[in-house]
Amino acid sequence: MEKVGFIGLGIMGEPMALNLLKAGFNVIAYNRTEAKADVIIEAGGENGRTPKEVAEKSDIIITIVSDTPDVHDVILGENGVIKGAKKGSVVIDMSTISPSVTKDIAAKLKMENIEMLDAPVSGGDVGAINGTLSIMVGGNSEILERCKPILEAMGKTITHCGTNGMGQTTKLCNQILVSVTNMAVSEAVLFAQKSGLDGGKMVEATKGGAAGSWQLSNLAPKMIDEDFAPGFMIDLQQKDLRLVLEAAEEIHLPLPALSYVHQLYKSNQANGEGKEGTQALYKSVKRLTPK
Amino acid sequence: MEKVGFIGLGIMGEPMALNLLKAGFNVIAYNRTEAKADVIIEAGGENGRTPKEVAEKSDIIITIVSDTPDVHDVILGENGVIKGAKKGSVVIDMSTISPSVTKDIAAKLKMENIEMLDAPVSGGDVGAINGTLSIMVGGNSEILERCKPILEAMGKTITHCGTNGMGQTTKLCNQILVSVTNMAVSEAVLFAQKSGLDGGKMVEATKGGAAGSWQLSNLAPKMIDEDFAPGFMIDLQQKDLRLVLEAAEEIHLPLPALSYVHQLYKSNQANGEGKEGTQALYKSVKRLTPK
Repeated sequence: MEKVGFIGLGIMGEPMALNLLKAGFNVIAYNRTEAKADVIIEAGGENGRTPKEVAEKSDIIITIVSDTPDVHDVILGENGVIKGAKKGSVVIDMSTISPSVTKDIAAKLKMENIEMLDAPVSGGDVGAINGTLSIMVGGNSEILERCKPILEAMGKTITHCGTNGMGQTTKLCNQILVSVTNMAVSEAVLFAQKSGLDGGKMVEATKGGAAGSWQLSNLAPKMIDEDFAPGFMIDLQQKDLRLVLEAAEEIHLPLPALSYVHQLYKSNQANGEGKEGTQALYKSVKRLTPK
Repeated sequence: MEKVGFIGLGIMGEPMALNLLKAGFNVIAYNRTEAKADVIIEAGGENGRTPKEVAEKSDIIITIVSDTPDVHDVILGENGVIKGAKKGSVVIDMSTISPSVTKDIAAKLKMENIEMLDAPVSGGDVGAINGTLSIMVGGNSEILERCKPILEAMGKTITHCGTNGMGQTTKLCNQILVSVTNMAVSEAVLFAQKSGLDGGKMVEATKGGAAGSWQLSNLAPKMIDEDFAPGFMIDLQQKDLRLVLEAAEEIHLPLPALSYVHQLYKSNQANGEGKEGTQALYKSVKRLTPK
C-alpha cells in the first residue's frame, strides 16, 4: 500500500488524515504547529519534521493548508515537498487556492517528474469527519485513477473536472453558487418577514419547485430562528470569494452579484460576525432596511 | 357539486379550466376575447357574457388574468364579479398581482358577504396542463377547506400561507428566489466557461451539495447548450419582478440583488429576448464581458 504524506492538520486536515489511517494507509503527517501531529501519532501515524521529510518518506503527498501562499510554501519552499519527493510520486493539493497558481505549481513539479492533482473539497468539517466530502479533481486522469483509493477514504463524490487547475475552478464555481443563492434566500426571507408572512410557511410553499435550493432548505430555517452558529464560517467564505474575484480579474470577467455578496459579508465582518455561519448574510441585508 | 365560474382563459387558465371539467365540475367560463371560450364549451362547459353573469351562475369564481388592474376590473369593475356574486360565494384569484391590492379587494368583497382567497400558482403551463401546480393560498382556512376539491383538480401542492395577501406575498418570494438563484447559476456557468472548464462537469460536480438548486440542475444545461426556448418567459418574469419591487417599495425594503436581476432582464428585453426563457439571463451577464 502506498505511503501517504499529509501536510496540514487543521479543522479539515486532521479528520481527513484520521480517515486515511482508518482505511489502513500509512500516514506521515506534518503541521506547522508540531503538537497538532500528536493525534495522528496516537492513531498510528508518523510525524515528519518538514514537508521535505514527509515527501522523502511518502509515495503520495496530500497538502491541505489555508491559502495560496501557504501551498506555494509547503510545496516549492526551502524545506518544501519538491526538495524531498521521489520521481513518480504524486502531490494532491486539497486546499482551496488560486487556479492559475495551481497550474504553475503543477508545471514546476512536472519538471522534476512529480505529478500533481488539485483536489479541493466541499462538505465542511462534518463531511471531513464522516468521509463524505465532495472532491473536485483537476489533473491527469490516470494519476487520478492511481489516487482514487486514497480519495475514496476521505470523500464520497469524486469528479474529474479537467486538467490541472480545473478542480480549483470548479470549487470556485461552487462558492459563486452557494454565495449568490444564499443572497436569494436572504432577500426572500426578509421580504416575507417585512410583509408579515411566516418565513416557515414561505419555505414550505416554495422549496419543492423552481425556487428550491440547498441554501433555502438548510439556511432559511436558521435565518428565521436567528441561529447564526457556523456551518461554514463567513471568514472562510470570504477567503474563497477573494480567490473567485482574483481569478475573475485574471480572465476579465465581471461578477456583479458575487461581488455584492462579498461586500455584504464585509459588513458582517465589520460588525464582528466573521466567525458566524454564512446564513448571517441575512443580517447584513437586514441592516440595509429601517428597523 | 359547486358550480365554478372561470375568468381568464390564457396560457394558464385554459388548461386549468379543462382540468376542472375533467374532475366533473360545472364550469362557466369568461374571456375578454370571447372566441377563447369555445374550447371550454366543446369540453362541456358554459359561457358567460360578462364576469357579472359568470358570478350570477356560480358558487365559486376563479379569476386568472394578467395583472393587478385586470383583476381589479373583472372583480370590482362595472360588469364585475361583485355585481353578480351571491352572498356566501367565494372568489379565488389565481393571478399573480399586488399583495396590498389583493387585501383591498378582499375587504371590498367581504363588505358584500363575498369571501376571497388569493391563490397564485407556480409550475408554468406544463404544471397547468398536468394539474401539478403549486398553489400558495392566502385567506380564511375554513374557506380554503371548502375550496380544496377545486384547487386539487388543478394543483398538487396546496399551502395555506396566511391571511389575504399572503398567497401573493409567497408567490413574490418564490420569484425572488428563482431570479436571484438564476443569477448565481449564470455567473457560475460564465466563470466556468471563461476559465476553460467544461460547464457540464461543473454542474455534475456541484449540484449534489450546498451549491445545488433547481435552477442549477435545470437551467445551467440549457445555458451551456445555448437553448433559450422559454420554460418561463422573461417578459412574464419581468411583470412579476415589477410586482416584487412595488411591494418592496411599500414596505421600504431594499432588494439589491433582485433589482439588479430585473435590470439585466431589461437588457434581455432591449436586445429582443423578452420572449426567451429566463435562462437567457446568462446572455445579459455575458454581454458584460469582452468577447
